Amino acid sequence: MSSERLIYLPLGGAGEIGMNAYVYGYGPENEERLILVDLGVTFSDMETSPGVDLIFPDLTWLMANKHRLEAIFITHGHEDHVGAVGHFWEQLGAPVYARAFTAALARHKMADRGQPEEVVKTVSAWPEVTKAGPFSVGFLPVSHSIPESAGLVIDCPAGRVIHSGDFKLDETPVVGEPFDPELWADVCKDGVKALVCDSTNVFSTAPGRSEATVGPEIEKLILSAPQMIAATTFASNVARVKTLAEAGERAGRSICLMGRAMRRMIEAAIQTGVLDSFPKVISPEDARAVPRENLMLIVTGSQGERRAASAQLARGKYNGLTMKEGDMFLFSSKTIPGNERGVIRIMNQFSEMGVDIVDDANGHFHVSGHANRPDLERLQDIVKPQMVIPNHGEHRHLRAHAKLSNERGRASVLAVNGTMVDLTGDEPRVCGFVETGRTYLDGAIKIGALDGIVRDRIRMALNGHLIVTVILDEDDEPLGEAWCEMKGLPELGRSNAPLLEVLEEDLTQFLGRASEKTLTSDDKIEQELRRIARNTCNDEIGKKPEVTVIVSRMS
Amino acid sequence: MSSERLIYLPLGGAGEIGMNAYVYGYGPENEERLILVDLGVTFSDMETSPGVDLIFPDLTWLMANKHRLEAIFITHGHEDHVGAVGHFWEQLGAPVYARAFTAALARHKMADRGQPEEVVKTVSAWPEVTKAGPFSVGFLPVSHSIPESAGLVIDCPAGRVIHSGDFKLDETPVVGEPFDPELWADVCKDGVKALVCDSTNVFSTAPGRSEATVGPEIEKLILSAPQMIAATTFASNVARVKTLAEAGERAGRSICLMGRAMRRMIEAAIQTGVLDSFPKVISPEDARAVPRENLMLIVTGSQGERRAASAQLARGKYNGLTMKEGDMFLFSSKTIPGNERGVIRIMNQFSEMGVDIVDDANGHFHVSGHANRPDLERLQDIVKPQMVIPNHGEHRHLRAHAKLSNERGRASVLAVNGTMVDLTGDEPRVCGFVETGRTYLDGAIKIGALDGIVRDRIRMALNGHLIVTVILDEDDEPLGEAWCEMKGLPELGRSNAPLLEVLEEDLTQFLGRASEKTLTSDDKIEQELRRIARNTCNDEIGKKPEVTVIVSRMS
Repeated sequence: MSSERLIYLPLGGAGEIGMNAYVYGYGPENEERLILVDLGVTFSDMETSPGVDLIFPDLTWLMANKHRLEAIFITHGHEDHVGAVGHFWEQLGAPVYARAFTAALARHKMADRGQPEEVVKTVSAWPEVTKAGPFSVGFLPVSHSIPESAGLVIDCPAGRVIHSGDFKLDETPVVGEPFDPELWADVCKDGVKALVCDSTNVFSTAPGRSEATVGPEIEKLILSAPQMIAATTFASNVARVKTLAEAGERAGRSICLMGRAMRRMIEAAIQTGVLDSFPKVISPEDARAVPRENLMLIVTGSQGERRAASAQLARGKYNGLTMKEGDMFLFSSKTIPGNERGVIRIMNQFSEMGVDIVDDANGHFHVSGHANRPDLERLQDIVKPQMVIPNHGEHRHLRAHAKLSNERGRASVLAVNGTMVDLTGDEPRVCGFVETGRTYLDGAIKIGALDGIVRDRIRMALNGHLIVTVILDEDDEPLGEAWCEMKGLPELGRSNAPLLEVLEEDLTQFLGRASEKTLTSDDKIEQELRRIARNTCNDEIGKKPEVTVIVSRMS
Repeated sequence: MSSERLIYLPLGGAGEIGMNAYVYGYGPENEERLILVDLGVTFSDMETSPGVDLIFPDLTWLMANKHRLEAIFITHGHEDHVGAVGHFWEQLGAPVYARAFTAALARHKMADRGQPEEVVKTVSAWPEVTKAGPFSVGFLPVSHSIPESAGLVIDCPAGRVIHSGDFKLDETPVVGEPFDPELWADVCKDGVKALVCDSTNVFSTAPGRSEATVGPEIEKLILSAPQMIAATTFASNVARVKTLAEAGERAGRSICLMGRAMRRMIEAAIQTGVLDSFPKVISPEDARAVPRENLMLIVTGSQGERRAASAQLARGKYNGLTMKEGDMFLFSSKTIPGNERGVIRIMNQFSEMGVDIVDDANGHFHVSGHANRPDLERLQDIVKPQMVIPNHGEHRHLRAHAKLSNERGRASVLAVNGTMVDLTGDEPRVCGFVETGRTYLDGAIKIGALDGIVRDRIRMALNGHLIVTVILDEDDEPLGEAWCEMKGLPELGRSNAPLLEVLEEDLTQFLGRASEKTLTSDDKIEQELRRIARNTCNDEIGKKPEVTVIVSRMS
């Protein structure tokens, strides 16, 4: 029996939906040669990560083992799969492989961060394979909500792994390759060790619907719109953008695309050949001259993002165009949990303008890009893997997917980020744990999620911030009174006196009676002043703020 | 023609779902005698109101006109209708009328704020009426998700107004009075001037389902649970708590209620007679001795609230009880938009424990307490009002409800908070605008939403906070160097030097070359130091923090 082993180690994406990063390794224990599948981001929110620009997986382990890393493979061009490439390539240093459209987006990501674009290599679909140490990796086309998505066929001496990537089983996907069950069955016919599989829609019990079902419904809707219509979807959903544009064209509308991300995406799709036909589009300048009843805008911002085209239209004007009473706005999209407030804000702003809002409440104007539960079952039946490793999901998704697999007689394991799984034997075996977490991009700096920096910001947001300054002379005696400044706190307290005055009085009184032992120790003064300030605030305003004490000594 | 008029003026609840407060007036223009219907709160969120404890409507206008206020009527006991009574009664000073159960809750609210409980008067249902100046007001029973909800029959010389309150058309509501179409038709048979009507579910196109449909499904679910089951719903949904408890009892389970709000609510319901039978409940202490497969917990926290029983169970232990592998947790509730993250957090925590989560995705375990679109139509057909004034909704709900009313041949108006509507004529007529907004309870202090206090807190959360102190001697010369402290900012910048050192160097350099004109002016020093500090931060960390400059002078 060989002492070499095949390992799987998620560093991001297993235990959350977002920031995907999965390591595979083959070789002697702790000397496995490694490949990384996907390198994505996730997005911040005000509740847990205010002010943070992007969230990355913590790649400390991988960076410490970069000498073992052979290559990075990107399954498709969504931000949660490719978004971190430019931010980490320098520390990882391995070649990046992707299909043409994805590679074009990855090169944008590299260029945006001043990284060399040429390390991103374009590869063709299966049966072409790329050698990476002991691995040979092929890109198996599959349908999803972005063109050229691919599952990976990962071969090594321990056997074949199918890494599904994000997928749905769409045989009429509008753009890109249809799911080809014969091809998949053929690739898997000699036995598959493990299927590492997307879990996003494991709770959706009906089979997924094809992208092709959306167009006719949207066309009907456009024909019913008396004035201008604007529609939003994910910029990267090239098929949907095309569906919307073609439905608009059939309904006699001129089409105008708005939002940088959407134009960039369509351009990349045309340049790389994944989009061979697209209705003629007009510029926003030209759109202004088109009668409203003949115009259709397709815009970014389906998740209510404040800076996107939809939010700007909702606030008034974008590229010189405005929505008006009698216009219609279509969300051809689903609201990702957590984004509801932003989306509802836009809906109400449009309502104030007299714009009619249509969303996907009735299920006619959007279909998901992920495989539903019956589709997951069907894929297992096609791939017939020895074991199923659920990924791309929160804990509850992974758990349900593992359970589903067990019920169908397949070995499975619930492996969240940091769980190293040995796939060599007949069953998956947890063989180690690696520390993982989140790294925040905060302005230009990468900080750890647990560094305390963001925690301090959250505390200031909840409690306000009080600053106390005291100056001590050469003899350690207070020079003048304590001085307070505050941010995010009310001016008047319960006693109806200015809060700052009450604070300064209490603190100055304390200084007047403080012992030499206290006054000679910065730590003691700080501690005492903080305690008094918090208590006074609690009495006056019913809140204990964050307190920063600054002691200046003249000595 | 009389110069007296009947006006309607929403101060909260029209343009949002929450903090309901509706004024009606009758009399000569600007001398109308007033009544207030409902006095509720809404809840803060991290995005718009971090650290805020409760949100109230801005009642400045009403307080300025308190001499005209005859009475306050509370339709039902939900927080968004009664939650602000204790906070504003002192400034309004009018008697508060409610039915027995609601009055019991209102008295709790008064007592919680040290206000006199006896100003809350218990009234009986229609045909009893309460005189309040030119008004006579009766409580017309209607079904909702809390017992004893009532529509109001508001009579004055200008005619009869029906204020629906929150309602659904449930003829088998489990607890409380069924909706009685004959009674409503009888009350309305001599003509109704205006129906002021709940708009919450105007986008739900199927008729609402009865509370009675939920019990059998829940019983089946409980029978399928191999181990302990815990279920959560709104504490105030007494009917659902009863439905859950009875289903549990029928399935052979001992019932334990957990969470202060839920116990308080059930006690009030029993004491006021709205709940005449309820399964025997056991204490958490006794529950620990019951075999898990015979136990059912009913707990607070259906919206993921961090301090509620469900969240505490999800984190580990509550009242000595823990959830374990194989247990089941049921959300017999709907997630209010904006609360998704909190609910999902709990779901994943339970998943980590191996607890099976059941929610209302299939629609079997929850029904809404609000009238759906067909129910709104049915109510219009029963009440046959001259006009319909939509309330209790965001702008988009009010707009859709007004449109629906117009389509059915009834006059309507979209009146958001602050819009004064004259109901005297045949059609509603906007006759004025009053300044409205939100008042925050922040700790113990009421602050205005636009005071800038919360805005500063949000800015600190997004940008961090830098404090710069300088000391100037008697000659306005800098004494020592500039001193910086920071909160919520990274320690190292792009140059890999400590950010504070780089800042102090830049700021001290500036002080060294500053002109006398600058050094003698606190404003100028502040302005310059802030500018330099923000630029240095931008260079070093790609972020411009909030900056507080403290200038101390020895003079």
